[in-house]
Amino acid sequence: MKYPHHLKLLIESLKKLPGVGSRTAERFAFEMLAWSADDLKKISRLLGELKNAVRFCPACGCLIEETDCQFCQEQRLKEKKVCVVSSFKSVLAIDSTGLFKGAYHVLNHLLSPLRGQGPDTLGIERLLERIETLQFQEVVLAFDSTLEGDATALYLKRELESTGVKVLRLATGIPMGSSLDLIDQATLSKALMGRSQV
Amino acid sequence: MKYPHHLKLLIESLKKLPGVGSRTAERFAFEMLAWSADDLKKISRLLGELKNAVRFCPACGCLIEETDCQFCQEQRLKEKKVCVVSSFKSVLAIDSTGLFKGAYHVLNHLLSPLRGQGPDTLGIERLLERIETLQFQEVVLAFDSTLEGDATALYLKRELESTGVKVLRLATGIPMGSSLDLIDQATLSKALMGRSQV
Repeated sequence: MKYPHHLKLLIESLKKLPGVGSRTAERFAFEMLAWSADDLKKISRLLGELKNAVRFCPACGCLIEETDCQFCQEQRLKEKKVCVVSSFKSVLAIDSTGLFKGAYHVLNHLLSPLRGQGPDTLGIERLLERIETLQFQEVVLAFDSTLEGDATALYLKRELESTGVKVLRLATGIPMGSSLDLIDQATLSKALMGRSQV
Repeated sequence: MKYPHHLKLLIESLKKLPGVGSRTAERFAFEMLAWSADDLKKISRLLGELKNAVRFCPACGCLIEETDCQFCQEQRLKEKKVCVVSSFKSVLAIDSTGLFKGAYHVLNHLLSPLRGQGPDTLGIERLLERIETLQFQEVVLAFDSTLEGDATALYLKRELESTGVKVLRLATGIPMGSSLDLIDQATLSKALMGRSQV
């Protein structure tokens, strides 16, 4: 034999997690064998009820706990600004700065042709609709500073042109607290190009 | 808010996996949010039934799928040899070489004072009992070549002395296919000390 059938199925399931290969999945499964029955019941229940317990706001795509989306409140919408991100985690990061009081819009993903994620599934219609109905004046694109993030920002800028809305991006430059010697050349170039008066 | 309560609980559960910190657990949880309802149901069921579906042989500690332990069969026991390992994975690895036909004995863990794993919980009484009742003549200690593995081997050797059984260890030396230049000094020293006639 190799592993018992049940364990094999569990390993297969765990392998679907990001960055988890056969070895890690095996390690996880064996570790779980040693968990208490209570712990196993708990995670089993959490996973079984996940889809019902945690939902996404149909308008902005943020996670909703109760019934109302806290990021779609009147007070946020009347700022007439929307920050477009690629995941709900970005919403939490940006919101914790306290510097953006407007609404958010979570795209389904970034543009990534290599992973088969094209513009059709981005969820841009939903964004265009909201810009029109909610009369947003300003769109802030807040994506990872990667090839995918840049491509998505460029694509969105072009698509949003017709709406007449102001499209902004997060500033690129030297991160706070870092030493100039250790900054990569691309970042330094961007920081130089974006130099501003003191 | 931070994350919804349900998601927070799931992240806490996932953090119990080996080598998984807050960041990775969050990544896993968000990935699982995107899984299909079927996939979630499947893993939920597998985890809920894990304790019942996969059991350990009360005698040797190997995983049992059906009712009988395949490593406790008559034919293996009559070899009068037992290979002591620290996890069932080692059993599979050793068994796949086809060079050991005897019985196995899986300890609960290796000796590791730093993790609070002392000799009391090793499961050595079970081993002594089996040596006596099954009249094993030879015990092969097959542990990781680490501090914990070495300590456990030394401890077992001393404990087994009174039984009069022959206690052997796996050979330490240069792994097959490796270049001498790249071997660490400790391994090379062991290989030299254990040199044998061609």
